[in-house]
Order: sequence, then C-alpha cells, then structure tokens
Amino acid sequence: MHERQIIKRIQSRLKATSPVGQVICGIGDDCAVFPSNGQDWLISTDTLVENKHFDLRWHPPYDLACKVMAVNISDIAAMGASPLYATISLTFTKQLTDSWFESFIDGIIDMHAKYKIALIGGDTVSGEKVSFTVTIIGQAQHQILYRNGAQRGDSIYVGGALGSAGGGLYLFKKDYTSPVAARATSPHVERRNVRYSNLIKSHLHPTPQVALGEALAATGYVTAMQDISDGLATDLAHIAEQSGLQAVIFEEKIPVLPELRTLAKEYDLSLSELALSSGDDYLLLFTVKNGGEQEVENVAQQVQCPIYKIGHCTIGEGVQLIDSVGHARPIAFGGYEHS
Amino acid sequence: MHERQIIKRIQSRLKATSPVGQVICGIGDDCAVFPSNGQDWLISTDTLVENKHFDLRWHPPYDLACKVMAVNISDIAAMGASPLYATISLTFTKQLTDSWFESFIDGIIDMHAKYKIALIGGDTVSGEKVSFTVTIIGQAQHQILYRNGAQRGDSIYVGGALGSAGGGLYLFKKDYTSPVAARATSPHVERRNVRYSNLIKSHLHPTPQVALGEALAATGYVTAMQDISDGLATDLAHIAEQSGLQAVIFEEKIPVLPELRTLAKEYDLSLSELALSSGDDYLLLFTVKNGGEQEVENVAQQVQCPIYKIGHCTIGEGVQLIDSVGHARPIAFGGYEHS
Repeated sequence: MHERQIIKRIQSRLKATSPVGQVICGIGDDCAVFPSNGQDWLISTDTLVENKHFDLRWHPPYDLACKVMAVNISDIAAMGASPLYATISLTFTKQLTDSWFESFIDGIIDMHAKYKIALIGGDTVSGEKVSFTVTIIGQAQHQILYRNGAQRGDSIYVGGALGSAGGGLYLFKKDYTSPVAARATSPHVERRNVRYSNLIKSHLHPTPQVALGEALAATGYVTAMQDISDGLATDLAHIAEQSGLQAVIFEEKIPVLPELRTLAKEYDLSLSELALSSGDDYLLLFTVKNGGEQEVENVAQQVQCPIYKIGHCTIGEGVQLIDSVGHARPIAFGGYEHS
Repeated sequence: MHERQIIKRIQSRLKATSPVGQVICGIGDDCAVFPSNGQDWLISTDTLVENKHFDLRWHPPYDLACKVMAVNISDIAAMGASPLYATISLTFTKQLTDSWFESFIDGIIDMHAKYKIALIGGDTVSGEKVSFTVTIIGQAQHQILYRNGAQRGDSIYVGGALGSAGGGLYLFKKDYTSPVAARATSPHVERRNVRYSNLIKSHLHPTPQVALGEALAATGYVTAMQDISDGLATDLAHIAEQSGLQAVIFEEKIPVLPELRTLAKEYDLSLSELALSSGDDYLLLFTVKNGGEQEVENVAQQVQCPIYKIGHCTIGEGVQLIDSVGHARPIAFGGYEHS
C-alpha cells in the first residue's frame, strides 16, 4: 500500500466503527483538534527519516534539529495557533558522534526557547537509520483555520517565495558536500553556496510562520489555511478538495526568489516545476474572503512577512494553472510526495 | 552517547534555560503532565523499532499493532489515568503486503475501540526499517501517581506474574517460526507454543492495566507507580531513585507463572533473572502506604487483577534483593535496556 492509501484505509475503517472520544477535527488536516473545557487543543505529529526527509551527509546537526521542530511547528502555525508543548522521539545510530549530539541538542533547546515551547517528553532508541518523530501541542487564541473553509470568490495567497527549499535541495543533491566541508575543501562549492545562500538556508533551516498564522487568524478574513510541505500543486489541491471547489492560480504571480531564477537558468531547470512541485518550503497557503484583502495584507506587513496573491477560488474541482498566455492546465496533486 | 546519557544531557540543558510553558511534570516519568483549565492532561510517546523492539519474522501484524498501542496505553495506566486520544506515526517498508496492512489496521482499530481512544492523527512514511511512534493523551479522574511519591515503610506491589514476556521472547529467539507458520510446518514448535501459550501471548500481545491503574489511584493509598517495561530491577530502581529511598524485595515473593518455571528448567535458564531483568511485561509496579494494603487488595480483586506484595521501602538507596536464605544483594538497574 502507498502512504495515502494507508491513511485513507484507516480513515474509512475509523468511520465504520462507533465514534469514541470527543474530537473536533481528526485525520486529514495539519493538526487534529480536541476540546478541553472550552479551549481547544491542537496536536500534530510528523516523522522525518534519514535519506528520505534529510541527508546526514550535508545536513548539519544544529540545522537538522531546528528543521525537525520547524516542520511540526509549521503544522500548528497552519491552523492559526501557537505551539506550547513538544515531545520528541529520536532514533539514532552508533555512527553519530558526541559532538553531533551536542549540536543537535543545541538546536532543539534553541527552537524551544525561540518559540516558547516546553519540551515535556520523548523517547530515545538506537536503530539502523536516524529518524525523528516530533509531536507538538498548541492552542489557538483566535478562530482555528481548517482546510475546508474556502469559499467561491476567495483570493488565494502564499506567505513567501516558493521553491527555495527545492532549489537548495537540488544543489546538495548535485554534490554531497556539507556547507562546513565546502568551506574547507571545495572553493567552487563554497562560492556556489554563498551565491545561493537563501536557497540553501531554506532547505537546511526553514522558518515556520507562527506569527503570520496567528495574525491572519485574528483578522477573521481567512477562510482556509495550511502549510506548503509537499509543494503548492499538492497542498492547494487539499484545500480545493476539502472545500469542494476549484483553485485557479496564475503562473506569473507565483513568487520566486531571484536566486531561484538564476539557478533554473544555470542548471537548465524548469522554474515553474521548482515553484509548483518542490516541497519543504513550510510557508503558509491561505484563502481570504472578499473585502478582506487589504486588512490581511496590512497585518502581514505588521509581522514583517510579505504575502502574495496568486489566484482565486471558483466552482469546480482541482487546481488550474493559468500560464502567461492565458492557457489553463490542471496541476492538482502534481507536487511530489516523499515516495 | 548512550540513550540514557542523551536524555540526561537534554534534561540538564533544559534546566539551564529559562522555563517556558507551564508544565507539572516533564521528562523522567511515564508521562508528562500539563495543565488545562483545572484538569491536567497526560501525554506519552514511545517508539518501537524493527529488530530492536519487535521482529517481523514472528510477530503477527494484528498483535504487533495491539502491542504498539499497549506500550503507550500502559504509560498512561502507570499514572492512574485513562487514555483518550492517540496519534500514530508509521514508518513502513516496501516488503509489507496489503494483507499485512489490513491485519495491522485491524489491530489499531480494535485497540482504539477496546480502550475507547480516538485516533486523531498521525503520519505514514516509507523507510528501510519498520518503526512506529505512538503518542497517547489521557486524563486522570483521580490523583495522578508519579514515581517520586514512595515513602519509607510503604509496601511494594506488582500487578501480575513477572518475566512472562521475556520467556515468550526466549522461545521465539530460539527458533524464528511465527505461530502461524508453526501450525503449518513445525508440529514440535506448535506443541511447544501450546505448552507455553501464556508466555507467548505475553510477548506478542501484552495487556495494559488501565482498569487496575485507575482503581488504585482512586483508593488514595498508592504513593508511587510506574509500569514494568525494562524489567523489575530497572524500573523499581527508578521509583527508589526518584523517591530518595531504598526498595527491598524478596526473591521468593516475586510472582511467576508455572509455565515460566517449566521453561527455566527445560532450557536451563535462571528463573530469577527472567523475573527480575526481562522487560516488556507492562504490569504495574506500585507502592502502598501503611494501612492501605487491605483496601488496595480489595479494589484489585474487584477489577479481577491479582496483585502481589513483593517488598517494602526503607532508608537508603537502590534496590536490594533478599534471597531465600536471607542474603541481600543490590540489583538496581540490573534489568536490561534495549541496547
């Protein structure tokens, strides 16, 4: 069975059994939501596995720890909430050195301090491959934003330039030199790393948009939200599917960093595919109801986070991409899935 | 670094930073506890990794799913609480068949129904080794029971016969035949499996003692509790260490199944070592204050769970085992740790 098949199979089996416990939102959104004396809790779990989600050959332990936390914090941000508690389960291998662990722990501690999260538990086991499962629990001060609330006529926004992490990953895959090793031994790779530093940083050390997510939720104008982890084409398809409408986006409105354009030219890559289909950007993707655009853009500016309108919602299904000459093509779930 | 070193390193680093969030109990007990409008939540995370915590050659998928859940449910039971919500993260390999998944999902669904838990989220990824991380969230109707509450003079109890799971594991390690394959192809292994069926069941499909844990918490006489996952010697050492006293236990009072005695004779094994040091029994281990023994034994009988008094707490440190001729020897942390 494929990943998505397994989840669907479990979901259908759960629906067939009597409901147990009290759940507001279960499997199928960035977080699950459960009630507690009037204030809802959000919970998110994600597993990152060596050679699938990260590569120890180039990922420095400090940045890796930050990314492991960021991926889960981003799920809480994607509901407009803030993280409060975390548990982390580490599977490590005998190859990891003490200094690797020290740097990794530095990253964990710094992320907890930066986002004011309490690390309340976890588990450590040794295994044959390194992997991490982080569970984050958060609470919302405002309305919780789900994937299924988008309405016809809503505008579609993203919280930053897309494809950056994918560009960084491309460079590392081309040669496996770690940033530290490059400084010491490969001047040309080091020069390249400096030239493409924003792409490399996006891949190694993504920043979850917690402040933006909370500010957006506070406006009352945002109707649906999620974070972009599997690529815009795939993640926007979730909002379209769960909201029962079609998302229309314009190729030329999709924001990309100048560095990504340069990279695409230098290595003869499809800029559009990088922006639409590469994952791990952990930027927010959200829909805004009519009349709310100005307010939403204002609050984004207040938290110093530029946002970009890339399209709108209409009747239909899936995701349509309109290219520069006005041609439409369906791209839903065209993003990659970690296979 | 070793598992315990990593946890200690993280703990000491966390203590050095400013406290963030509101936590009643963090790392170091079966569950972490965090407050919510007057009613506390408990959370536990455990990771089980192929070839370390389970072996796919003999562990049927249905039982494995039940065990994955049971291990975590047991952590909630060990605080005297009941489980409410679960998330499960699966790392699977391409070798697993559709029928394997169907049986595994059957086990997950059945455990959720049996313990009235809502499965609210999770993650599935493919990898090179199968592993599972389950997070369970629960709440306590009564006083939450920690490891650090034991007092001098308290009696020490266990919730059932020890070493059973270790005995079952020994049989499987001796030959790798799965119970199903044994029925088809190995009559002598099949006969052995029938003879030692309780040991085999304890290994493949342990039962967390949720009803007992809640009933014990309700008495008000239990001062400390945890579950036995790493073996009595190791787990009792945690209670002794965290309560700042010495645990004294009597070898001849340690309950074992008749089957385990037979097994020890047949294969020339140390019965004492099986009972003291083998893990994965997931029985409750708890201390009872003076005057509470009768009441505690009564409620255990009401939930049809025999409990056994094995010793008492005194001034000092560590765990002392008194053998049949009255000799004492220290055995703290003599249990095994998944290496």
